[in-house]
Amino acid sequence: MSESSIHDIDAYMSDLGVRARAAARALARATTAEKNRALLAIATRLDAARDQLAAANGRDLEAGAAKGLDAALLDRLELTPARIDAMIEGLRQIAALPDPIGAITDLDYRPSGIQVGRMRVPLGVVGIIYESRPNVTADAAALCLKSGNATVLRGGSEAFASNQAIAGCIHAGLEEVGLPADAVQVIATTDRAAVGAMITMPESIDVIIPRGGRGLIERISREARVPVIKHLDGICHVYIDAHADLDKAFAIALNAKTQRYGTCNTMETLLVDTAVAGQILPRLGAAFAERGVELRGCARTREQLPAALPASEADWDTEYLAPILSIRVVDGLDAAMDHIARHSSAHTESIVTEDYGRARRFLREVDSSSVMVNASTRFADGFEYGLGAEIGISTDKFHARGPVGLEGLTSLKFVVLGDGQVRG
Amino acid sequence: MSESSIHDIDAYMSDLGVRARAAARALARATTAEKNRALLAIATRLDAARDQLAAANGRDLEAGAAKGLDAALLDRLELTPARIDAMIEGLRQIAALPDPIGAITDLDYRPSGIQVGRMRVPLGVVGIIYESRPNVTADAAALCLKSGNATVLRGGSEAFASNQAIAGCIHAGLEEVGLPADAVQVIATTDRAAVGAMITMPESIDVIIPRGGRGLIERISREARVPVIKHLDGICHVYIDAHADLDKAFAIALNAKTQRYGTCNTMETLLVDTAVAGQILPRLGAAFAERGVELRGCARTREQLPAALPASEADWDTEYLAPILSIRVVDGLDAAMDHIARHSSAHTESIVTEDYGRARRFLREVDSSSVMVNASTRFADGFEYGLGAEIGISTDKFHARGPVGLEGLTSLKFVVLGDGQVRG
Repeated sequence: MSESSIHDIDAYMSDLGVRARAAARALARATTAEKNRALLAIATRLDAARDQLAAANGRDLEAGAAKGLDAALLDRLELTPARIDAMIEGLRQIAALPDPIGAITDLDYRPSGIQVGRMRVPLGVVGIIYESRPNVTADAAALCLKSGNATVLRGGSEAFASNQAIAGCIHAGLEEVGLPADAVQVIATTDRAAVGAMITMPESIDVIIPRGGRGLIERISREARVPVIKHLDGICHVYIDAHADLDKAFAIALNAKTQRYGTCNTMETLLVDTAVAGQILPRLGAAFAERGVELRGCARTREQLPAALPASEADWDTEYLAPILSIRVVDGLDAAMDHIARHSSAHTESIVTEDYGRARRFLREVDSSSVMVNASTRFADGFEYGLGAEIGISTDKFHARGPVGLEGLTSLKFVVLGDGQVRG
Repeated sequence: MSESSIHDIDAYMSDLGVRARAAARALARATTAEKNRALLAIATRLDAARDQLAAANGRDLEAGAAKGLDAALLDRLELTPARIDAMIEGLRQIAALPDPIGAITDLDYRPSGIQVGRMRVPLGVVGIIYESRPNVTADAAALCLKSGNATVLRGGSEAFASNQAIAGCIHAGLEEVGLPADAVQVIATTDRAAVGAMITMPESIDVIIPRGGRGLIERISREARVPVIKHLDGICHVYIDAHADLDKAFAIALNAKTQRYGTCNTMETLLVDTAVAGQILPRLGAAFAERGVELRGCARTREQLPAALPASEADWDTEYLAPILSIRVVDGLDAAMDHIARHSSAHTESIVTEDYGRARRFLREVDSSSVMVNASTRFADGFEYGLGAEIGISTDKFHARGPVGLEGLTSLKFVVLGDGQVRG
């Protein structure tokens, strides 16, 4: 459907929802082989359509430049040959992953004689709302397809032509292997009312995954009438304990902050036990200064690092996503965990210690989606964890927590095998 | 706090939320032994408080009778000695269940050298909204306590005195073992505004479980700003396949309908393959007639059972919760699964068949929280499934599906064990 032909958004979205629901039923029945063939067919179609993809993307880039979009946004929008390669490679990797659907676990006999187990099943229809990067269209559709879910995708208006071109390849690939094209629908209008409809259609969409800035995610969470897998801030902490191996502490703190600045699993606040502050802070301070990281510290930190700026209360609650680090000297494990409980966004925290009991307490008591001992917070992602792929990182506890791979897009139903049993 | 002293509901609820959040942190840290001691202490307190419980319940019953509550409601409201016994026994059983919290699963080495696993953790604060039965106060608090969650309970106004008396025993038991009394808070006002506040406090309450009629659950789901574990209708089906063992079919259909009429896992519609309708329907019809079950059938059913009333379209979508059964003759497995996809509430469906391939398809393709082969739908509950206890049955797919025991009140966080690893 061309954009100009969509006048009645509610009717368009309602029809799209009905078709998604029907496709979801077909997809839930699809075999592993069919789903994998579809993923590979889509990869082949994308490979063959490089010229069309580049042309469509060129139109988006031109329109974006004319609208005065900033350079960072235009960069995210661009489908370079390397990014098209990555999209194709991603599809092939997802085809190679094990199929979670249909697996039955814990099939046990009960005293009544029935066997009870749980079978992994798709959620149904997954709605994804994202901003500028057009490669999300293929990545998200592939994860949903592999996990047996139909998908409704709403990309950024600035990537409209690119997303529609990718959607064309996806539909061709699905139809080639006999799966319904409606299994992946990319909303063919930039009208914002489509998003409002999408997040309030529980009869057609089972879960919404927003990918984008905090503003987008908060607005969607507030207005949605459908469950949302949210990814809000990553205010991650490293705590250097009194019993830390200081060489490990040095390497981990440096890596957690400087390996990449703009990612959600980057350390934003360093906590240091007062017993080792004098030994580790000057060494870390020099290394951070060398890399141009601005330091903001509490009073005790600034005794060790006079060049650091004074940290304000707001610093402890800030996700910098930049070469800035707040540092606080604390009196032991409980003070560190109190700081984390108060200021963390519950994304990822790491303790550096050689003390068994403190490691054990930190693992148990810190309530974050990833809790680490002697490792860099930068490991918190689906690929490093072995999930094979990642559709997002959930900062919620309900349903999915932390990096969300294929399993996060599924549910478990009970299966009961009997031999004529009735209840007495 | 006495009810009359609560004037500002928002301030009361906000304070209660802050205290629940603080208690949740203490409870998440509590050991298995502490939680079990608390459960047993509460059981002992309830046992010692039988007179006070009976007196409080008597006041509720008197007020209810004066208000003209119907007999069924007054019956649900009554705390008979047997029901107090059951409450006490329930607490002891929950103390005896394994503690799900802290269990680490799937701890595997990754190529980077880190070990990644998942640890089961509490959800945090669970809000429960229920109607007349005061025993829910103890049952729900016990399940939440064992799973490390703080609880905010809002019972029916007609059970106010009974619930407060039970709450007194719970608080005394918690304090006796050194756990915070705020771990279980029973809202001390019958003002309906408290429910509105409770379902819109995501900062203090992590999930709402409504237990009651469809009207209550729909209203809460519509207005909640917090995830809801819902239990809507149970329109359950038994499908008698052409290859069924007809003796098993007879026993299962009879049990699924008549073992209890008012439960959500009772069969409401029987589907029969046309190939066996002539053999099984007259036999079943006689048995149902003997038990006073009203039959409503499609035209082909009524050829076999002329005494059956004609079924209307609305019958296929009705949860009778009564001695009424709708019956439809269908042309094979696909027609049966189509009927189920269109009319089931996705609670529980059972196929009766000796055909391996059809059993396998039914298990895979029917999208309900419980899918059975050759067993009565009446088995769909947490005790029969071996969950040990049940806080409700979820008709959603997100987070928890089907009977919800302790595990449904938990989440999984990632744990990472390293030895100084940093990301390259």
